[in-house]
Amino acid sequence: MNRRDAEALDAADPLARFRDRFDLPDGLIYLDGNSLGPLPRTTAPRLDALVRQEWGRDLIASWNTAGWIDAPQRVGAKIARLVGAKANEVVVADSTSVNLFKLAAGALSLRPGRRKIVTERGNFPTDIYVLEGLAALAGAELVVVPTDDLVEAIDEQTALVALTHVHYASGRRWDMAAVTGAVHAKGALALWDLSHTAGALAGELNAANADLAVGCGYKHLNGGPGAPAFLFVAERHQGAMRSPLSGWMGHAEPFAFEPGFRPAPDIRAQLCGTPPILALAALECGLDLALEADGRAVEAKGRALCGQFIDLVEARCAGHGLKLVGPRDLGQRGLHVAFAHPDAYALVQALIARGVVGDFRDPDIARFGFPPLYVRHVDVWDAVEILREVLETRAWDRPQFQQRAAVT
Amino acid sequence: MNRRDAEALDAADPLARFRDRFDLPDGLIYLDGNSLGPLPRTTAPRLDALVRQEWGRDLIASWNTAGWIDAPQRVGAKIARLVGAKANEVVVADSTSVNLFKLAAGALSLRPGRRKIVTERGNFPTDIYVLEGLAALAGAELVVVPTDDLVEAIDEQTALVALTHVHYASGRRWDMAAVTGAVHAKGALALWDLSHTAGALAGELNAANADLAVGCGYKHLNGGPGAPAFLFVAERHQGAMRSPLSGWMGHAEPFAFEPGFRPAPDIRAQLCGTPPILALAALECGLDLALEADGRAVEAKGRALCGQFIDLVEARCAGHGLKLVGPRDLGQRGLHVAFAHPDAYALVQALIARGVVGDFRDPDIARFGFPPLYVRHVDVWDAVEILREVLETRAWDRPQFQQRAAVT
Repeated sequence: MNRRDAEALDAADPLARFRDRFDLPDGLIYLDGNSLGPLPRTTAPRLDALVRQEWGRDLIASWNTAGWIDAPQRVGAKIARLVGAKANEVVVADSTSVNLFKLAAGALSLRPGRRKIVTERGNFPTDIYVLEGLAALAGAELVVVPTDDLVEAIDEQTALVALTHVHYASGRRWDMAAVTGAVHAKGALALWDLSHTAGALAGELNAANADLAVGCGYKHLNGGPGAPAFLFVAERHQGAMRSPLSGWMGHAEPFAFEPGFRPAPDIRAQLCGTPPILALAALECGLDLALEADGRAVEAKGRALCGQFIDLVEARCAGHGLKLVGPRDLGQRGLHVAFAHPDAYALVQALIARGVVGDFRDPDIARFGFPPLYVRHVDVWDAVEILREVLETRAWDRPQFQQRAAVT
Repeated sequence: MNRRDAEALDAADPLARFRDRFDLPDGLIYLDGNSLGPLPRTTAPRLDALVRQEWGRDLIASWNTAGWIDAPQRVGAKIARLVGAKANEVVVADSTSVNLFKLAAGALSLRPGRRKIVTERGNFPTDIYVLEGLAALAGAELVVVPTDDLVEAIDEQTALVALTHVHYASGRRWDMAAVTGAVHAKGALALWDLSHTAGALAGELNAANADLAVGCGYKHLNGGPGAPAFLFVAERHQGAMRSPLSGWMGHAEPFAFEPGFRPAPDIRAQLCGTPPILALAALECGLDLALEADGRAVEAKGRALCGQFIDLVEARCAGHGLKLVGPRDLGQRGLHVAFAHPDAYALVQALIARGVVGDFRDPDIARFGFPPLYVRHVDVWDAVEILREVLETRAWDRPQFQQRAAVT
């Protein structure tokens, strides 16, 4: 493959038209949309109109007239289409961490007598930390096992298995249907963190018979920094699921101001506080854009980009100590690729200085994301050439690239 | 008093200059800023710059270069000045409901062996609902007592007393120092919900020796619809307080990606998920404006406005069935005034149709807020005259004013 081949792939790409829908800085090769998605062109004008008109002019009336009160469900229904769920199975609320707490606690309430929560070692830190906190409060037991021991760790005492579908570092993708089946075989529930899945891979929650899911709005959904998160509860569980975070927005009639909590009979029972209207509007702009694209085409192009990157790095950057992390089979991956390198942090900084933005993950991982709506095949080609030059000239080996920032 | 007197009060008002700092619709008398504060003029340009430059141009780098990662503490420190706390005792995070859950759970951990949480009947619904949810999960007991029985309900089994400082409906204000003292006398902790206090009344958390507090960003702080909330943990408790919502942002080193949770040694331990950057920026605009005003002058003017409203309603609207709710002593009130009326809902709608925006609270309360930065004495005069006309003509008694909206 050469640069011309990459250009030819881009010319034939049915998703090519989406790149101009983002406000990307000229000349930047942005391979970190799996951490913070870029700005859709619709977002700034929408927010400005919301702030100046709906908030500024119409004030409190907008809770009714502008549909603010229904935004968590309306935006949730849009996410549902991306993750393979029904419209009434997803709401937007809180953060991924808070939603994980709610649903994991709900799972314990659905499996009384079972007190074990199983997850894998190396799961995204906040997932493990939140499950730790819940286990301590609820008197449950958190079992954290090596990836390969996961399925055999599930037993008749297990209430919940909580996994991140696509691993934040390695990019490894669980077989959602197979693992959910194994979880159900033991009578437990399966909760999937879709933070690196939603908007990247074709949705499969209901096809996989998943019970519960959470996910992030600021990665492949392009909802903006700290965008609100979402959660999924399969319709069959909604009647019985209880949220311990039983705030007023989860009440059957929030404005009846009843003296005791009476949960909404549907997915709204998982809401808690007042919905974050500005952030919901920004997220909705990202979603409306994502929904114009075909999910299977997105996944297919993403795989092709990842494959191209792996092949080119291994062919053109050989001998510089880069080692692919995670499976080689593209069908077992999400849409980011990680290489381990002893000086990964400095390497990533040197690339950023040359306009190729990836990120570093402790302890030694350089990570690159390939969101198909705006990353082109020529970007992959150019990124690898710049990486090769950085490696061959040891351009990363300078003091200014070693200094760790607060957020890595 | 007549309208000239009101004009004279406004002419002498040291806070009068603040009104122009808000983008208020012409001719509207907005007495609902205790539900949703109006738009500061700085907010829309700030959000636009944040979205287009910090997110759009600088992308992921802004977590470091634009100070995104420190925003919860930076904005929290600004709120601290309004509520009488130290800069390191407040952070912005999540919703009021979620923060209440975190701090109430933390209080249980600070008082091992005590399992009772005491609150008052008629507290804001979400406060009671959230405490219910926590009690069920943590095996604690929620004791909900009539207001007058509150102090005697506190005993040696009580871990926490959770109260809203200014009652959402009646406007009644607890004596924070006296109640906190009574709580401490039994060895329990005091948690204050400052949703109707912050930005309205002079801050007194440390003066009252309060332990914990939460509050809302979208009322008197003018942070926008669904703005993020804040929480306060007195410095003396920070080392030992544990949050059950132990997400990665509460970790001592969030980006070290350690395998287990290790809480931050300070107020950051109460953070959970990724901070909502857009909403934090909007909230900060409201705070920067509030911080220009003197807190004692704000409270003093607010009392004067409330007193004027009560006096005028009772003098000019007598005989129409309005009954003041809550104490008459202005020193025992916050900055909103509620009147009970058998047709309060329709009455409020008829007023809104005439450009006087208050709100209705179940079952029979018409509520009017008097945030001193933009409400004038002439607004109070005019509002009462319009109310009088609506009552005298029974203008509220029309079908279109009876139909309840989803959000009341």
